[in-house]
Amino acid sequence: MFAKDIYIARRRALIGKMAATAPEGKRGIALFVGNAEAAAQYKDNAYKFRQDSSWLYYFGLDEPWMGAVIDLDSGEETLYADDVEIDDIIWMGPQPSVASKAAAVGIDRSAPYGAMTVAVTKALATGRNIHFLPPSRYFNTMKLASLTGIDEESVGKVAPIDEDGGRHASGELVKAVISMRLVKEPCEIEQLDDAGALGQEMHSVARDSIRIGIVEQDIVGKMEGVVLQKGWGVSFPTILTQHGETLHNHIHDTIIEPGKLMVIDAGAENNMHYASDFTRTYPTSGRFTSKQRDIYQIVCDCNELAFSLTRPGVAYRDIHIATARLMLERLKDLDLVRGDVDAMVAEGIAGLFQPHGLGHNMGLDVHDMEDLGENLVGYDPDQKRSEQLGLGSLRMARRLVPGNVITDEPGIYFIPALISKWKAEGTGKDFVNYAKLESYHDFGGIRLEDDVLVTADGARRTGPNRLPIQPDDVEDAMSSPAMSSPAMSSPAMSS
Amino acid sequence: MFAKDIYIARRRALIGKMAATAPEGKRGIALFVGNAEAAAQYKDNAYKFRQDSSWLYYFGLDEPWMGAVIDLDSGEETLYADDVEIDDIIWMGPQPSVASKAAAVGIDRSAPYGAMTVAVTKALATGRNIHFLPPSRYFNTMKLASLTGIDEESVGKVAPIDEDGGRHASGELVKAVISMRLVKEPCEIEQLDDAGALGQEMHSVARDSIRIGIVEQDIVGKMEGVVLQKGWGVSFPTILTQHGETLHNHIHDTIIEPGKLMVIDAGAENNMHYASDFTRTYPTSGRFTSKQRDIYQIVCDCNELAFSLTRPGVAYRDIHIATARLMLERLKDLDLVRGDVDAMVAEGIAGLFQPHGLGHNMGLDVHDMEDLGENLVGYDPDQKRSEQLGLGSLRMARRLVPGNVITDEPGIYFIPALISKWKAEGTGKDFVNYAKLESYHDFGGIRLEDDVLVTADGARRTGPNRLPIQPDDVEDAMSSPAMSSPAMSSPAMSS
Repeated sequence: MFAKDIYIARRRALIGKMAATAPEGKRGIALFVGNAEAAAQYKDNAYKFRQDSSWLYYFGLDEPWMGAVIDLDSGEETLYADDVEIDDIIWMGPQPSVASKAAAVGIDRSAPYGAMTVAVTKALATGRNIHFLPPSRYFNTMKLASLTGIDEESVGKVAPIDEDGGRHASGELVKAVISMRLVKEPCEIEQLDDAGALGQEMHSVARDSIRIGIVEQDIVGKMEGVVLQKGWGVSFPTILTQHGETLHNHIHDTIIEPGKLMVIDAGAENNMHYASDFTRTYPTSGRFTSKQRDIYQIVCDCNELAFSLTRPGVAYRDIHIATARLMLERLKDLDLVRGDVDAMVAEGIAGLFQPHGLGHNMGLDVHDMEDLGENLVGYDPDQKRSEQLGLGSLRMARRLVPGNVITDEPGIYFIPALISKWKAEGTGKDFVNYAKLESYHDFGGIRLEDDVLVTADGARRTGPNRLPIQPDDVEDAMSSPAMSSPAMSSPAMSS
Repeated sequence: MFAKDIYIARRRALIGKMAATAPEGKRGIALFVGNAEAAAQYKDNAYKFRQDSSWLYYFGLDEPWMGAVIDLDSGEETLYADDVEIDDIIWMGPQPSVASKAAAVGIDRSAPYGAMTVAVTKALATGRNIHFLPPSRYFNTMKLASLTGIDEESVGKVAPIDEDGGRHASGELVKAVISMRLVKEPCEIEQLDDAGALGQEMHSVARDSIRIGIVEQDIVGKMEGVVLQKGWGVSFPTILTQHGETLHNHIHDTIIEPGKLMVIDAGAENNMHYASDFTRTYPTSGRFTSKQRDIYQIVCDCNELAFSLTRPGVAYRDIHIATARLMLERLKDLDLVRGDVDAMVAEGIAGLFQPHGLGHNMGLDVHDMEDLGENLVGYDPDQKRSEQLGLGSLRMARRLVPGNVITDEPGIYFIPALISKWKAEGTGKDFVNYAKLESYHDFGGIRLEDDVLVTADGARRTGPNRLPIQPDDVEDAMSSPAMSSPAMSSPAMSS
């Protein structure tokens, strides 16, 4: 947990932002429901507890079964949670009191968990606004619906509090939270660098573990073990695949074969729950073929271009487009596309090769605040989301400001199903050399991703040890894995 | 997945058992709702998918968003799931059709996920019984409530289908499923041995990694990494603590100190989702003090006694009591308790030292089928659960039959909060030497656990390599960790 002043200041700032939404006495309450344990199998065998990210941001307490109400008119704050009984102490050990937990994050008042119902019922009875964030989990959906009497389908809808009698999540609260979480504080940047270090360590172990003949899962387990030794766990399910053309491939039962490209997209969540998210693509044999290297270098150059353009005031949407342009220019050199590059950019031809966006915000969530609404998080009010494949998947389009933390992750993929679809529909027929594309049918995909902090006058990558990315450097690293690498020194773990 | 004949036979057997509950034409349908993805942070960043165990048992398909209906009158079976669209193929790769997935587990009919609503609505409209299992997860609670029109509080209640118009989970279905899953088939025993091997490997790595001065989490990550290399993950959140007296301690931020006892209670879930569950207790310095050794030997002897008594026809409740008796006899030798051992057994004095039961069933769940009802799973109809601390926590009391797989996990703990409570209440004042107990205030706890299969004429432990358990063997293992151990050869991983 951070020092309590951090949480006090954040809640003050939130109250300040919400003050602008209504005159004093008309603001109502902000209701926060923390996460509960989530059953993996039966109820008492739960997944590793992960607190709600906005709860962590404002309340810091990393425990299940908590709630809080901030009175936006009086400023009064109450933490709702239950003190433990003697039976719990036998199983869980002595626990600090709820009052002391509240005090640790600067909250004076606490009450039993069940009393949250009383507080909300009272607010409802007196016609006060009840601002809450859209729930991510089924538990929170059920709990919010039960507290407010709103049906479960509606508690996840985001709209201004004046609409439909406020029977939905609060657009005002969502926007206020986004405006704060988008700009990382120094204490958060420290955590993101820490998560970056851990992510870079796991990637290094993974790279040094690549061996022909082993199962992909063997590497996945090893790299995730590295994270669990020092952090909370992976920040999202690891992608480690020789089928990089499948963008979110979570199957790891394939034997590593020579001559393939292996995409490793993985990150760490540290014990403070900040994320990292890196991607590298490795030739399984340790050296790129010249065909692989040609495509790899394009992706690598797009990654570098994006970083070089990243600075305050520039819209990330424009940087996405700049990398799409470079990608098309270079694919044109390879005769995979033909014609006028400006026209191809306008037509969204890059989407055939990179059907995803250049990057997304990152913080307590690896796709930061995704459930608050992708467009509200990633788009300025004057930006309209594209409907093109690729650009339309861009999660972060905003004009950058210092403190933004974003990913820079261009990729080129040869996706047979997508190529067939475009070809059959005649999409891009004036530009795409479908005949030549046929020889890339088994190529796979390449993605290269760093995490980037927007600084006062430019940008820097987070994490202390950038993973090798230039093709020569990658080959060098693969030919001489660090002597300290567990992959080299403990055959037992990769057996 | 097992061969499809396994699933066909299980469903046939289930239909057979359910046939006894009502005359033909009056049996209704059995409705199964598989698990959905469960958000860790936002919806699209889900925990690693874990399918519902009863679903795995009858339908095998290890994917989210599936449902099934078995018509208990006609025997007709339908799988409900959605085929993927082109957009999904881009992100997830080509997928087999739902029809082919159904065929792989011997089901002829399939339909879109949404059609499950139609099937249930039709059954409701024609007044048929709808048998379903109580849900473990919030999603399944919401889904079952929405499908059946039963409120969310009631779908988890288990009662005979004739009560309250069947507006609850089905007691008949619960009992039928329990009767089958309690007795493991040969293909399941193979999987339990496999999970056992993985659990023993992770424990060996953990034992070899114990070092004064490192953080507990360092070992936890290492051992969990071993599991992730070959299996699904841990079968429950790892307990690894120098505060063994806290029975379910999941905090791992403590530095390992000399002279302590470290309880490691952890298991593996293999890729087929079968569990193992082992506990060992290690002296952090590598050698037991004589005080530690005295208590350790008692627990060790209780573990061995329980195993020696385990055979078909014996009630596990009686084996629990036999170990409690031995424990009290030996604690009496140490003058920690005094008086007549029979009287102490009857009074439940052992519960002060071991407030938990001797063991539980194990299979696809580490506490097998816990959400179907602990008493239905673990108690014969003629057995009444005790209210005593310790014996009352016993999850498996039944008369054993070949194919049962159970844990054997006695423990002795010195729990300051519990000792103070008993002393203050005067509980056990005629037997417990509270004065002498004071010198055990900082002792911690010891638990020793193996997994045991009941065979035709006795029992055998599952997993190929029983972890050292006799105190001399433990000290030997700690003084010469295997050369192949990653803890020995890769300092980088424990740095």
